[in-house]
Amino acid sequence: MSNKYAVILGNLGNTCDRFLSSGYKEQPDKETMIRQAAEIPGIQGVELVGSWDITEANADEIGSLLHRYGLKCVSIIPDLFGHKRWGRGSFSAKEEEVRAAALEETMRAAEIARKLGCGLINIWPGQDGYDYPLQADYLQERAWLTEGLTQVCRAYPDLRFSLEYKCKEPRTHSYLARAADTLLMAGAVGLPNAGVTIDTGHAIMAGENMAESAVMLQQAGGKLFHMHFNDNYRAWDDDMIVGSIHLAEYIELLYWLRMTGYEGWYSMDLYPYREDGQGAVRESVAFLQGVESMLDERAIEEIRELVREGNAVRSTAWLRNRIFNRG
Amino acid sequence: MSNKYAVILGNLGNTCDRFLSSGYKEQPDKETMIRQAAEIPGIQGVELVGSWDITEANADEIGSLLHRYGLKCVSIIPDLFGHKRWGRGSFSAKEEEVRAAALEETMRAAEIARKLGCGLINIWPGQDGYDYPLQADYLQERAWLTEGLTQVCRAYPDLRFSLEYKCKEPRTHSYLARAADTLLMAGAVGLPNAGVTIDTGHAIMAGENMAESAVMLQQAGGKLFHMHFNDNYRAWDDDMIVGSIHLAEYIELLYWLRMTGYEGWYSMDLYPYREDGQGAVRESVAFLQGVESMLDERAIEEIRELVREGNAVRSTAWLRNRIFNRG
Amino acid sequence: MSNKYAVILGNLGNTCDRFLSSGYKEQPDKETMIRQAAEIPGIQGVELVGSWDITEANADEIGSLLHRYGLKCVSIIPDLFGHKRWGRGSFSAKEEEVRAAALEETMRAAEIARKLGCGLINIWPGQDGYDYPLQADYLQERAWLTEGLTQVCRAYPDLRFSLEYKCKEPRTHSYLARAADTLLMAGAVGLPNAGVTIDTGHAIMAGENMAESAVMLQQAGGKLFHMHFNDNYRAWDDDMIVGSIHLAEYIELLYWLRMTGYEGWYSMDLYPYREDGQGAVRESVAFLQGVESMLDERAIEEIRELVREGNAVRSTAWLRNRIFNRG
Amino acid sequence: MSNKYAVILGNLGNTCDRFLSSGYKEQPDKETMIRQAAEIPGIQGVELVGSWDITEANADEIGSLLHRYGLKCVSIIPDLFGHKRWGRGSFSAKEEEVRAAALEETMRAAEIARKLGCGLINIWPGQDGYDYPLQADYLQERAWLTEGLTQVCRAYPDLRFSLEYKCKEPRTHSYLARAADTLLMAGAVGLPNAGVTIDTGHAIMAGENMAESAVMLQQAGGKLFHMHFNDNYRAWDDDMIVGSIHLAEYIELLYWLRMTGYEGWYSMDLYPYREDGQGAVRESVAFLQGVESMLDERAIEEIRELVREGNAVRSTAWLRNRIFNRG
Repeated sequence: MSNKYAVILGNLGNTCDRFLSSGYKEQPDKETMIRQAAEIPGIQGVELVGSWDITEANADEIGSLLHRYGLKCVSIIPDLFGHKRWGRGSFSAKEEEVRAAALEETMRAAEIARKLGCGLINIWPGQDGYDYPLQADYLQERAWLTEGLTQVCRAYPDLRFSLEYKCKEPRTHSYLARAADTLLMAGAVGLPNAGVTIDTGHAIMAGENMAESAVMLQQAGGKLFHMHFNDNYRAWDDDMIVGSIHLAEYIELLYWLRMTGYEGWYSMDLYPYREDGQGAVRESVAFLQGVESMLDERAIEEIRELVREGNAVRSTAWLRNRIFNRG
Repeated sequence: MSNKYAVILGNLGNTCDRFLSSGYKEQPDKETMIRQAAEIPGIQGVELVGSWDITEANADEIGSLLHRYGLKCVSIIPDLFGHKRWGRGSFSAKEEEVRAAALEETMRAAEIARKLGCGLINIWPGQDGYDYPLQADYLQERAWLTEGLTQVCRAYPDLRFSLEYKCKEPRTHSYLARAADTLLMAGAVGLPNAGVTIDTGHAIMAGENMAESAVMLQQAGGKLFHMHFNDNYRAWDDDMIVGSIHLAEYIELLYWLRMTGYEGWYSMDLYPYREDGQGAVRESVAFLQGVESMLDERAIEEIRELVREGNAVRSTAWLRNRIFNRG
Repeated sequence: MSNKYAVILGNLGNTCDRFLSSGYKEQPDKETMIRQAAEIPGIQGVELVGSWDITEANADEIGSLLHRYGLKCVSIIPDLFGHKRWGRGSFSAKEEEVRAAALEETMRAAEIARKLGCGLINIWPGQDGYDYPLQADYLQERAWLTEGLTQVCRAYPDLRFSLEYKCKEPRTHSYLARAADTLLMAGAVGLPNAGVTIDTGHAIMAGENMAESAVMLQQAGGKLFHMHFNDNYRAWDDDMIVGSIHLAEYIELLYWLRMTGYEGWYSMDLYPYREDGQGAVRESVAFLQGVESMLDERAIEEIRELVREGNAVRSTAWLRNRIFNRG
Repeated sequence: MSNKYAVILGNLGNTCDRFLSSGYKEQPDKETMIRQAAEIPGIQGVELVGSWDITEANADEIGSLLHRYGLKCVSIIPDLFGHKRWGRGSFSAKEEEVRAAALEETMRAAEIARKLGCGLINIWPGQDGYDYPLQADYLQERAWLTEGLTQVCRAYPDLRFSLEYKCKEPRTHSYLARAADTLLMAGAVGLPNAGVTIDTGHAIMAGENMAESAVMLQQAGGKLFHMHFNDNYRAWDDDMIVGSIHLAEYIELLYWLRMTGYEGWYSMDLYPYREDGQGAVRESVAFLQGVESMLDERAIEEIRELVREGNAVRSTAWLRNRIFNRG
């Protein structure tokens, strides 16, 4: 059984940063992006961001387009970060009306998901956090966050809510910062449909070993609901082409995803600022497929033995032989 | 009620690193170090490291010395990191006999603690982790760690076991890496005498906001058992004099320790490689006492309002006025 | 003689990031921003960014406004980063016409500077660098950068060109990355009007000690031409209110700026995403003024002795006594 | 013409850290280490650390052993970091007698080098720096460092002195911190026999791209004198097996070393704390040989084209095809 690959649709669009807010490229229309996604070898699904990609207004149209191009809607990511009203938080915002709006926005996404036959809501509350010392009421705000997340999980027991962590950006500190924090949050929600998304770049920038984080979540009762893939230089969420910087740790991650029975999607989440978006996604999937085929039965057996033994010289030799094809 | 200050005894001794393994200073005898600790204004207790400071053989002698100098034994830190046998782990080591030895060593520390009337064992399993990709069996090793910790907590229900996390060093990755990971571990142990130690430097180097970590642990049922203090430049465990680099975040931490009812010790944990050890500890305590007296009733009221409001300009102005005494 | 404070005008405007490209606030008009700058106690000058703040078209109008509000134009920052055409570099771009456009843009800024009686061009070639391994021709591109900078310095011998370094963002690696790299570049240009800007946040995120960087540049023949101020958590260019996180290192920096005869501007360069811009700048200036008045003659004498002695316990005690006003 | 590989002899010995100062392994005798070095395929030379490996007393004996095992002495690394007397600096120490001792120690190493027919002294002044704010007299200490280095370079014009930079450890800040800083220092010395050593791990932890640093040094008149190899997780000098974490950047580095005519040694500098030292070095050399043979004429041509074009999708595809052998 092979891995299922997807992509966040916006990867194929224009991308901006704070210095070039108009973006480095031109914005293609929705159909173009969907077609481009469909053309990428291996891609079977897309994730859609609320506001940016999907709204109640265009849900039917997007649904038709996906159908036409043979793509599944893998997840909806409610927009809890991309409008002025979320500037100081969504579920944990100090203003009651903003918290209520976050609930509404997420429920709107849930309704769209149901309509599109999509079973997963990926929640990234990127604005929920703080920037300065002496600015946040940790007790109160963490409680609000827990409360809001519990409400949405309870309201849609047929959908899975996967909480995506990221230690910083756009805030200097986020409430859902690391794998363990977020597993604790899923535990506080206490419902079977609350789980965690690992974004590989977020795990790396948090100083985590991606594979250990995956194991920890799976060990806690299959709480790894979803995976986002990208690469970076460890200190920031550079959102680069998968495998452009790291190799060994992706091999290890894919090994452990298999060992712990992960059956979710392998979804690309890049920010190809200056690159051709389709090319960047295509390369990322091709890299992961490369790792996937490297992990044949014999390799799985060998790695099982390597991690049992723990001899770094042997582990490194194994890797080297694979890279330089002397294995 | 004022804060209780302590120090890890070794702070007053010689300190080495990998390039200068004989250490930067001379090693004083135990009595000298204990006397020096007692001389520091504010210090009421010491923490003792197994092997380095305390063994079954010298426990009575150390107990007498502490008594003579009016110091309490605040915690015992079993040596699970300072001998060749722990080089590849203690509770999670791949060799069964090493895991058994870790159990024994910790129980030995527990016996000494009982003898000295000390209620807390501070467990820092610094060698439990891994260095390379494809080297560790995360599932198995994490399970062993949980099992071992559960056994010691169960065996000594009259003592509290406080798990100290640190994301790296001496391994490139530790199993008890961050506050939330370690709270999950305490939860997995599932006993009321399992809790967590925050070392401020470890929290900082893990990218945590110290105060939020403290709140998270206290929110989980008073799981913050112990505090170690030192300062650093955020990227490594420099173990510097408290307050030499940071200020705002220590003020915030002490505020939240008070708000969440922390009643444990404020213990210094420095590595004054090239500094006079007593001076470095004295400065650290004096800094914290400075923050403590800054946090008078009016300040507490003001901070409560600041974190409720969340206006960074006001929070920063408050801090500035305190520093430059225009408040 | 007291320090001269300025602000980059855009600090008072709307600020965006890649997730919220419309910005967290509303964009005020130019006059409002200039008036707000003038209202901040201590502010005597502004820096203007090409395209964003100033163009050939509005130069006269802006000049009049500055005059009306009693502000000096302290520097022009040519826009070499905020348009699609600079997306892959300016002076070091692979396309000849982009390199030519960078030259033109900078010369246009130089002409405006002359017109406004401003003697300094602050060059931040933020897009000049690279993102991926195997992507850049370091030899060629570094040569182009040197060539372009030499040309503008030679063309306007009456203006000073101050090169602002930043190790990353928007590229994962910039060519002008650190203080020493940039001093080497100024040396390669080899003209007296080529110097370096220290942005305190950029220095911190590059792992530099700001004061040592300032000393190094001044030691090289007074090559510190300009200073930008902001604060961060060391790992990224958070562009926060000055003094919100750090204190000791700013005291040290201001001490050494005075010792090495720095006579340039102290200019605020913040990104107050969610904060009131005027308040954030006002706080930043007030913090630096606080440090400035702390550094009276006695303090200067004391620090001179502390750095001669190098005893960290005494240095820290000095700082602590100043903070808690027991000195 | 193929690359010349060497190893620092101590890589094959015992290794300690601050928690386990007796070391993780047993210390073999000198002959054993030299024999082990000679056994590693590709190794043709060793580097010797003063005090640790070589002294005036054992120089003849070591010379004979090297001869017997067919190894060249590639460099001497004077001990300026491993004794209490260097605890607060060597060439830049505040005490005149320590600075004089540093000079002597380095000259002693130079004499030994002459005797062993070794043409390179690798100077790593690891203790020259500072830990705390307000502790160092940057102006004075940097001047002393320049002066001392100039004296040794002038005294031994027949030897090359290669300055090894490292941004931190054992100090929190070093004076020779980054490639550009150190090139400036070599420039200040102003003699043809002053150059720079890149330790790949030090470059990575300083946030540098190793290849760009090499190009910068070579561009400055062939100032890259020596190379140390190891790998790490970017944030600290983990001194791991080469290629255990990174791949793309080593390929790029070796490409540019060839392009810029580097003809020096490729010397392994690991700290295999818990690993078999010989195995770790053997793996590191084998990895670099793997990269070396990957860089055949066709690959060189292809990379030349890739860096000219700068298309990250193509660069990444090239890399991926090489890894997964579809190229």
